[in-house]
Amino acid sequence: MSDKHLSDSSELTEEQQREERYLARMKRKKEIIDQSIARADQDRGVCLVHTGNGKGKSSSAFGMVARALGHDMQVGVVQFIKGAFSTGEEAFFRRFPEVQYYVMGEGFTWETQDKERDIAAATKAWKQSEKLLNDENITLVVLDELNIALKYKYVDLQQVIKAVESRPVNQHVVITGRGAPQALIDIADTVTEMQVVKHAYQAGIKAQKGVEL
Amino acid sequence: MSDKHLSDSSELTEEQQREERYLARMKRKKEIIDQSIARADQDRGVCLVHTGNGKGKSSSAFGMVARALGHDMQVGVVQFIKGAFSTGEEAFFRRFPEVQYYVMGEGFTWETQDKERDIAAATKAWKQSEKLLNDENITLVVLDELNIALKYKYVDLQQVIKAVESRPVNQHVVITGRGAPQALIDIADTVTEMQVVKHAYQAGIKAQKGVEL
Repeated sequence: MSDKHLSDSSELTEEQQREERYLARMKRKKEIIDQSIARADQDRGVCLVHTGNGKGKSSSAFGMVARALGHDMQVGVVQFIKGAFSTGEEAFFRRFPEVQYYVMGEGFTWETQDKERDIAAATKAWKQSEKLLNDENITLVVLDELNIALKYKYVDLQQVIKAVESRPVNQHVVITGRGAPQALIDIADTVTEMQVVKHAYQAGIKAQKGVEL
Repeated sequence: MSDKHLSDSSELTEEQQREERYLARMKRKKEIIDQSIARADQDRGVCLVHTGNGKGKSSSAFGMVARALGHDMQVGVVQFIKGAFSTGEEAFFRRFPEVQYYVMGEGFTWETQDKERDIAAATKAWKQSEKLLNDENITLVVLDELNIALKYKYVDLQQVIKAVESRPVNQHVVITGRGAPQALIDIADTVTEMQVVKHAYQAGIKAQKGVEL
């Protein structure tokens, strides 16, 4: 069989052989993909962590909010450590009654220079997050920049892990921010590290509306 | 001065010293951040590339669409290589007259098993992309999964580079998909590589509405 195939192949033009290899490769790819999909048959809420120094951690959480709204889901968003400037996503998602949107930070920590105020703001934001993580009507919870609050120990890691692990079974939660703690990565289902290859500000371009703002 | 500072420090409690170091570190961080922002003073459209094997490449492009809509910008989206299943972001963003939304793929290539049909679909999608990249009224263009079409040479790389480099000066363009070609990375302003740390399907969880769909 193998010999016959080889002798057949030798009668084909180079282009036909390439085409055969292409089809064989595509067929194999489809088989692998189909097998993976067949194996993945659980249906439940997932915990996602977006970390790393690159751009896209918060943006992709907000892309998921758009996806969820496309399925008429209820969404809760808490932005930690932000709030010093108004952002496009806030202006946009506040238009939708399906979205509960909380911005409780007081600007980035290096802007406030006031540790007590930062801790108070983070604690308040975390209390709000716990309510969302207890609410069965909310299908997607975004805890934007929570990792920063965890890094500075403004929010207790064990409390976060407990609340995430005891959330409603079909609820998705996305936690963003650089420097995600290992214990959070351990309990998450999907973890992406956004790595910066290059960034426009390195070329002197300031933050742009619709991109960063 | 340095000696005096040292002798002063020795009179402080450990907690006060920690607090001093904290404030000094935060102050320095703020200085560095402020300097970077001061240097970055150019205002123009940027080209972003989201690549890598991790989750979040398309989601973060759609997060930027939400941001842009928050600023009342006009947006154009072309989805390459997709289209076999309806997604939440499509259902959502089609609600907005500010968004031109085109889905021109015929499912992933390994689903179609038909190279000629894939090329025809990609070519049609690229023609639409060129129109958006020529339109001064469009502030943000998303070319979703274009990198896949480039990888299979369904779309010509040099044509893409030419169209991206000659787009309106204030227009942002986001190109997503794994395996971004180096020549595209070279001309981009911001490039992020999404790296998979882990993914829910590895634990047997299928694609979830609001997360992947």
